[in-house]
Amino acid sequence: MQKPTRPERGTTPGTAGRRVYLFGAGKADGSADMKALLGGKGANLAEMANLGLPVPPGFTITTEVCAAYNANGRVLPADLKREVEAALAEVGLIVGGRFGDPSEPLLVSVRSGARASMPGMLDTILNLGLNEATVEGLAAKSGNPRFAYDSYRRFIQMYSDVVLGVEHSVFEDILDSHKNLNGLGLDTDLGAEDWQAVVHEYLAAVERETGKPFPQDTAEQLWGAIAAVFGSWDNERARTYRRLHGIPQDWGTAVNVQAMVFGNLGPTSATGVGFTRNPSTGAHEIYGEFLINAQGEDVVAGIRTPQPLTEAARNQGGEELQSFETLMPDAFAELKRVFLALERRYRDMQDVEFTVQEGKLWMLQTRSGKRTVKAALKIASDMVRERLISEEEAVMRVEAARLDQLLHPTIDPDAERRIVATGLPASPGAASGEIVFDADEAQALKAQGKDVILVRIETSPEDIHGMHAAAGILTARGGMTSHAAVVARGMGRPCVCGAGALRIDAKAGTMTVVGRAFAKRDIITIDGTTGEVLEGKVKMRQPELSGDFATIMDWADKARRLGVRANADTPREAEQARKFGAEGIGLCRTEHMFFEESRILAMREMICGDDEAGRRRALARMLPMQRSDFEALFEIMAGLPVTIRLLDPPLHEFLPHEEKEATAVATALGVPIAKLKARVSELAEFNPMLGFRGCRLAIRYPEIAEMQARAIFEASVNAGRKTGKPVISEVMIPLVAYRAEFDIVRDVIVATARAVETETGAKLDYQIGTMIELPRAALKAGEIAAGEAGAQFFSFGTNDLTQTCLGLSRDDAAPILANYAERAILPADPFVSIDQDGVGELMRIGTGRGRAVRPDLKVGICGEHGGDPASVAFCHATGLDYVSCSAFRVPVARLAAAQAAIAEKRGTSPAGRD
Amino acid sequence: MQKPTRPERGTTPGTAGRRVYLFGAGKADGSADMKALLGGKGANLAEMANLGLPVPPGFTITTEVCAAYNANGRVLPADLKREVEAALAEVGLIVGGRFGDPSEPLLVSVRSGARASMPGMLDTILNLGLNEATVEGLAAKSGNPRFAYDSYRRFIQMYSDVVLGVEHSVFEDILDSHKNLNGLGLDTDLGAEDWQAVVHEYLAAVERETGKPFPQDTAEQLWGAIAAVFGSWDNERARTYRRLHGIPQDWGTAVNVQAMVFGNLGPTSATGVGFTRNPSTGAHEIYGEFLINAQGEDVVAGIRTPQPLTEAARNQGGEELQSFETLMPDAFAELKRVFLALERRYRDMQDVEFTVQEGKLWMLQTRSGKRTVKAALKIASDMVRERLISEEEAVMRVEAARLDQLLHPTIDPDAERRIVATGLPASPGAASGEIVFDADEAQALKAQGKDVILVRIETSPEDIHGMHAAAGILTARGGMTSHAAVVARGMGRPCVCGAGALRIDAKAGTMTVVGRAFAKRDIITIDGTTGEVLEGKVKMRQPELSGDFATIMDWADKARRLGVRANADTPREAEQARKFGAEGIGLCRTEHMFFEESRILAMREMICGDDEAGRRRALARMLPMQRSDFEALFEIMAGLPVTIRLLDPPLHEFLPHEEKEATAVATALGVPIAKLKARVSELAEFNPMLGFRGCRLAIRYPEIAEMQARAIFEASVNAGRKTGKPVISEVMIPLVAYRAEFDIVRDVIVATARAVETETGAKLDYQIGTMIELPRAALKAGEIAAGEAGAQFFSFGTNDLTQTCLGLSRDDAAPILANYAERAILPADPFVSIDQDGVGELMRIGTGRGRAVRPDLKVGICGEHGGDPASVAFCHATGLDYVSCSAFRVPVARLAAAQAAIAEKRGTSPAGRD
Repeated sequence: MQKPTRPERGTTPGTAGRRVYLFGAGKADGSADMKALLGGKGANLAEMANLGLPVPPGFTITTEVCAAYNANGRVLPADLKREVEAALAEVGLIVGGRFGDPSEPLLVSVRSGARASMPGMLDTILNLGLNEATVEGLAAKSGNPRFAYDSYRRFIQMYSDVVLGVEHSVFEDILDSHKNLNGLGLDTDLGAEDWQAVVHEYLAAVERETGKPFPQDTAEQLWGAIAAVFGSWDNERARTYRRLHGIPQDWGTAVNVQAMVFGNLGPTSATGVGFTRNPSTGAHEIYGEFLINAQGEDVVAGIRTPQPLTEAARNQGGEELQSFETLMPDAFAELKRVFLALERRYRDMQDVEFTVQEGKLWMLQTRSGKRTVKAALKIASDMVRERLISEEEAVMRVEAARLDQLLHPTIDPDAERRIVATGLPASPGAASGEIVFDADEAQALKAQGKDVILVRIETSPEDIHGMHAAAGILTARGGMTSHAAVVARGMGRPCVCGAGALRIDAKAGTMTVVGRAFAKRDIITIDGTTGEVLEGKVKMRQPELSGDFATIMDWADKARRLGVRANADTPREAEQARKFGAEGIGLCRTEHMFFEESRILAMREMICGDDEAGRRRALARMLPMQRSDFEALFEIMAGLPVTIRLLDPPLHEFLPHEEKEATAVATALGVPIAKLKARVSELAEFNPMLGFRGCRLAIRYPEIAEMQARAIFEASVNAGRKTGKPVISEVMIPLVAYRAEFDIVRDVIVATARAVETETGAKLDYQIGTMIELPRAALKAGEIAAGEAGAQFFSFGTNDLTQTCLGLSRDDAAPILANYAERAILPADPFVSIDQDGVGELMRIGTGRGRAVRPDLKVGICGEHGGDPASVAFCHATGLDYVSCSAFRVPVARLAAAQAAIAEKRGTSPAGRD
Repeated sequence: MQKPTRPERGTTPGTAGRRVYLFGAGKADGSADMKALLGGKGANLAEMANLGLPVPPGFTITTEVCAAYNANGRVLPADLKREVEAALAEVGLIVGGRFGDPSEPLLVSVRSGARASMPGMLDTILNLGLNEATVEGLAAKSGNPRFAYDSYRRFIQMYSDVVLGVEHSVFEDILDSHKNLNGLGLDTDLGAEDWQAVVHEYLAAVERETGKPFPQDTAEQLWGAIAAVFGSWDNERARTYRRLHGIPQDWGTAVNVQAMVFGNLGPTSATGVGFTRNPSTGAHEIYGEFLINAQGEDVVAGIRTPQPLTEAARNQGGEELQSFETLMPDAFAELKRVFLALERRYRDMQDVEFTVQEGKLWMLQTRSGKRTVKAALKIASDMVRERLISEEEAVMRVEAARLDQLLHPTIDPDAERRIVATGLPASPGAASGEIVFDADEAQALKAQGKDVILVRIETSPEDIHGMHAAAGILTARGGMTSHAAVVARGMGRPCVCGAGALRIDAKAGTMTVVGRAFAKRDIITIDGTTGEVLEGKVKMRQPELSGDFATIMDWADKARRLGVRANADTPREAEQARKFGAEGIGLCRTEHMFFEESRILAMREMICGDDEAGRRRALARMLPMQRSDFEALFEIMAGLPVTIRLLDPPLHEFLPHEEKEATAVATALGVPIAKLKARVSELAEFNPMLGFRGCRLAIRYPEIAEMQARAIFEASVNAGRKTGKPVISEVMIPLVAYRAEFDIVRDVIVATARAVETETGAKLDYQIGTMIELPRAALKAGEIAAGEAGAQFFSFGTNDLTQTCLGLSRDDAAPILANYAERAILPADPFVSIDQDGVGELMRIGTGRGRAVRPDLKVGICGEHGGDPASVAFCHATGLDYVSCSAFRVPVARLAAAQAAIAEKRGTSPAGRD
């Protein structure tokens, strides 16, 4: 997720008046650090021009114009016209042409370019400037009427779609029917006359659909396109994307108007996309695809299957099509030089678009390339070795939130793989799930807790929400840089692309592969690392945590100040946590130990106990179970702190609520069913979240806390004797609101510790602290921590603190938050990323007041937020000692903590790359 | 409820070393303002001595000794002995006697006396110093062996009960059996030999019960008694009382040791209690009771029915027994002089205990007298007229919390009164309820929401919790100063005492009156103003709000700064509120308008609407209903502000949850039952308190807010035209956590207002504000109030703010709070009195931040706390503009607000009288 960054050079007042920035012919008005004003594309085009790289000349209309346009009822500033005309004339001078002049037609592309990359979200128009007159001029000048009319029809189609709102299918139908009537198969089969005929049908169709002729005035074309691009910033699709990615709605996009170069001028022309390194593996090799005799959109759209850039890639992929390296060696050599220059300038892997026009290479775009997290790790550590960047910069280069992609299971190599199809390994990792053919359905099933694989012929921006919801994405068409592949890598979803053997009938809800049929809701597995599609659910395996991962993690650990612990209730989780580098357990939820089938009966007996004696009998049976659990945890975490929270949930969670189960339980407990039911109804609550739970249990039934404390301390003694290492136990009292609550439970714990010390002769090393999970606790933190008998540590329970601070039940929040996301009310889901203004302020208050009375107060966080990078950064800034999160998020937290520390040192925010 | 007051003179370091304070013979070491150190009784005894009033000499051991005794494992300071012996000698010198000396026996009383009055809670021992030797001395000296042995047996009985823990019944059995064996009826029938015989049986019984002889050493007696009094401070009964009354547990009690005077020396001796004014009506007349030839405890215990002090009272009561005024005219004249001196000194109505020994009056105690609130009003306004106190002092003299006693219904004079019995009008007001005979049962039924009348032969401190739970109290025995009467008046419960015709069999659960039988759970009504007991439920009537009430309220209104509004949803409530002096409506809960049978169908139709159009159809039907409701409120509140809260509760509250009802509703709505059920289940929530409610509804379904805003504004126009007075409407958006929520709903309201203005041509006077009922809202108050479009007013919804700040569901809190009250974890029920440290801090933060950005921000409170005096004082201190509470609490709030303002001016806390 992108975060707002501080204003860049372009927005300084000194340049405020200027609206149009020229670039080309080895110089530019702008530069790479003016992304806020020129957008990413515009700033980088300027930079490439400054570097002397071959960039077709053009100009950028600033993002400020866009913001003003959308704020002022979609009206462009009056004097923009003069600036644009002057810039167009300048571009014409460089390339030798005049916009709208049939004799020397200057054609331009019009593209959006926002500050943050928004793939596919905003619109592009190529070949603008063509009309009935200039198309003839282009035909004459190029000596290639087929090219001229092909360009014209592309322009009409794109322009009509984007600016005039004419359905894509109108044009597809015309083209298909022309092909059918004339017995033509591929686009390449069409000649100049064919395209001319198609063009005239297109023009007629536009007039029919819109009621007006297609604009022949090239100035009208240009202003229509500029307005459409600016307007598209504000469309629903773009707004959704920005909300999903945390991009401010008021940034605006720039418009880039650039002289056209043509990759479709014949066999010595081409268009392609390339990466300076492999975005999937991170390998230092040229990576990318191209199409001969094509325009750029053909590659990205994934309609024709493109050719590899290098021979190595061709050999590796076993492809028949020839490589760019072989077909166009000069242009390839030039591209290599460009790549070198770009990496030296940007010190990062670049993703470029280029065109070869009759043998000459032109760069159309460069930007930091999206990459798998695996590639990010490799590129970052390689670049440190190559002395391009520092270790700290390397740490900053890996997006923490995406790190857990790497930590998720891959297909077990020993598992049986019933492969049904193979496509391109577009985004690594494996996933199993139910087949769905529709983005909405993917979202709906995900909401029901299902894992789904979204299966599409190809994806489009309309599918974004479904891709987000899916565990994995499978397409029948498109290459490694197709929409599906790019988006899936960005989201960290496993993706297999271009599995051409698939026959997908979304309407019928079926998918067939070589006669084998799959229906909607059948389960498949995709392996985005190999490109394989497998039948059924396949056994997965844990990732390796060595190599670049370990290197970057080492550097991260050097840089961070914040400790990272794990939430772990079981020995298995504790072991996993240590493997991922956890420095202790920040939260062991003791109640989870009693939900197990074999143990819940004792718990129920305790709850149904008639009196203290009855409860104590049941607790005595629970003691050895708890003790052995804790012993195992202490052994695994030998020498590291282990925070154990006393029983927290409402007791009715342990009781049966179904008639049938109740009868069985009553029999097992040997109590009358009526008594059990009475207890269930006695414990029922209107708002269990705000009910009889947390320390309220221990105050009502001190014998529970006593048993738990005894289990902890006896386990400490046993584990300490066994491992020879100190056991550092931290006993945590949940849901404290009043100091008196803390005192009462603390007294029970201290008395129990003394008893165990007396009985065993051991000296216990323990602390007693509290969860801060109620607003009152945060406000009264000073009182709760004060004095010798005060809380020795705080752990912010941000899940509950969020529920109470916002008055929002996590279990009931989904429809409310969905509605709020639609209305963009919340900057982020407050259960995912800490509400820094509200909950965060309570954390600041609690930490400040606690430390004011107890300077050595240990303060941590143990909610789900502990593994969210933005929340980790907040915890760092708030001065917490540690975060605790689920084992799988521990590396994320370590990295995020390091990034927060480095950003603090640098005086910047820890946001990711643009 | 008593509140801690600041340290008084006695606790200053200068006097810290001294433990024993003498009084008597016209001078004293202490004075009335040393209550903290000497307790109320001790300080006032000292003061009376200083005033030259006839006080038997004695001394007070300080409360500090008690605190130290209980803190140090119940050990008395070593050198206390020397101080006490010296004081005893001094007392002996004054009265001419020596403690423990059979020839000149000095007898003393040992009584507790805490800083705050704790009736019946601590123990008293009379006639201490009697043993086998001194009893003979007393007989000889008094020439009255019967008196001596009667005194001795009383002493043995009290001492054995209090100090040695021998059951009361042991002695009663002995006495009863002696009477039976000797054919004696009343105690007065027993002669000296009888008492001597009884004494010997008593002594034997004590030795049998305790295994040790009754102490004959008078010093041992004294120290045993002192320790017992100090220890009794710490007993469970006393702790409970203190928790109920907010008295700190560490205050401690003083011990008063005082030379005995005897009211049981024959027909010229007497004992009595008196008030300088009538504690029931406030009339300026001597009021009280006495018993000839009795000791003080006989009056308070209510076993013998006492005689009136004055002839006027005798005539008024139609009693046969002669008055004190007639029987002992000299002592009566002396008592009148004493009363005058006391009122001049204390400037308040006094409650005294006195004894007449052989014609001579002795004052044993004076204190500010408990009184009905009606009496408090009259006494305060009379004393202003008498120039004893100022108007502001008068305002401070009425306990605000008790004011609503006066506001509660009395029996309608036109109602049929089926009188079944008559007793003493012990505490005014009327109540109907089910008969219960047991305090625990009273509490249990009250918890089920039943009104109960606690019926007892007589009450004792063990019944306190039942008296608290009861709507009214009825006893068969005891006078106007019996335990039942005193406690009931203090609690503000209607009480009829000494209804001697009642035959109560608590075990059988029956009560018979002249052959007429009532069973447990039958309904009766008592009229504490007349002393009548009536059959069944009787029609009640509203109180008059004129006279002294109006006078004091006028003075209060002059003094207060805080505005007082009412929470009112209906015209009836609004009218009631205006009658009680509300200055507007602070909270109109619009949803309450839709729970009515005739309207809920439209609401349900809206909730089940398929889409916006369906909802709008139902809303259109709801519009005229809401409009007419608001019109009525606006007319009643013409010229005053009316705050209307938009729909707040979770929608499922409006839907049927029972199968049968659901079927009926589905039919009425014309929707399939399955659809209705689906909607019910869709809207079900785990924690409705934290769910889909408040502004979340308006954001999801803006058309609801639109309809409500339209109803408000159309009603404004109509009501304004009708009354000719301005309508000041304040539209309140509930449950706001984020500024964006406020903005979205505000936009709907503003647009609707504009539309109504355009349609009607009227100019609307309205404000838009928000409830601050979530911690986040309080923290982000600055953001929510900022700018022209920010909230124009805040109303703290302290019910919900308490629930979220404390993480405690009001609906589920009862058992938790009960447990916490037992453990004294909470200073008060946070749903009754604002948690000033937690919730209060959020209020301070919210008010401060809101006013920082909007200095004219109007801030109020509209939770139940608005009618709680301590909370009102807090609101005053926090700088709120107004409080809003239920209509019946409005006078309470007005008075409490005045007291807060006066206390602030004086620089003291607004606590009530000691």
